[in-house]
Amino acid sequence: MTPLFSLHPQLTADTTPVGDLPLSRVLLANDANYPWLILVPKRPGLTEIFDLPEAEQERLLGEIRHAASALKSLTRCDKLNIAAIGNVVSQLHIHVVARRKNDPAWPKPVWGAVPATAYAPDIRDRLIADLRNVLPLSP
Amino acid sequence: MTPLFSLHPQLTADTTPVGDLPLSRVLLANDANYPWLILVPKRPGLTEIFDLPEAEQERLLGEIRHAASALKSLTRCDKLNIAAIGNVVSQLHIHVVARRKNDPAWPKPVWGAVPATAYAPDIRDRLIADLRNVLPLSP
Repeated sequence: MTPLFSLHPQLTADTTPVGDLPLSRVLLANDANYPWLILVPKRPGLTEIFDLPEAEQERLLGEIRHAASALKSLTRCDKLNIAAIGNVVSQLHIHVVARRKNDPAWPKPVWGAVPATAYAPDIRDRLIADLRNVLPLSP
Repeated sequence: MTPLFSLHPQLTADTTPVGDLPLSRVLLANDANYPWLILVPKRPGLTEIFDLPEAEQERLLGEIRHAASALKSLTRCDKLNIAAIGNVVSQLHIHVVARRKNDPAWPKPVWGAVPATAYAPDIRDRLIADLRNVLPLSP
């Protein structure tokens, strides 16, 4: 049997789903310190970007571009931070983080910098609704 | 006049040149804690990956793939960490870091984790020679 895609439990725990692009599931990190998307290609068994066939690497690049552009237009951030790290959760996932010069970790990278802060539900729901309006999500 | 590409002084100070790919200059970070390449697209005025035209974004992806593949084959690392951050040095540069489960920062990301350690010159020169053998550098 072909193994099925499933999301790593840690990613499920740490995020709120936004929707699906053709290749990637888009998640919002549960951390109000920064608007922070995580893209997870919906293929089983991936660890590195380069485990994907080249055509899907290019598709992933395009989806990262959509996510980055959506964050930038919605948040008017000062800088995007984009990274594939995966030292703790090995399932391939790409961080796309909108950084502001007055955010709690600036100019440090966000990973491990300061504890996550919970979103007020209405703020989170509004951000997710705005993201759904600008991302080319699958119906 | 068209502005010319030049490397940010901080990148010059923190790295040793490896060579040039068609789009990117390849630099080795002066940190013996991890084999760590930095790719700098040779275009002036770039801050984000998505400042490049789409065709050059795909070329950059291919060059990141070459760099990652070279590091992986030479170091037999456990994980690649790939990131565009640029909060301190805004000139667009891509980190490609070979991580091992026994490196000094594992499993944390490398940025700001532990102080850089100087290479023994023969170790650094051997790594650069090996990289030059496997990367498709311009003559």
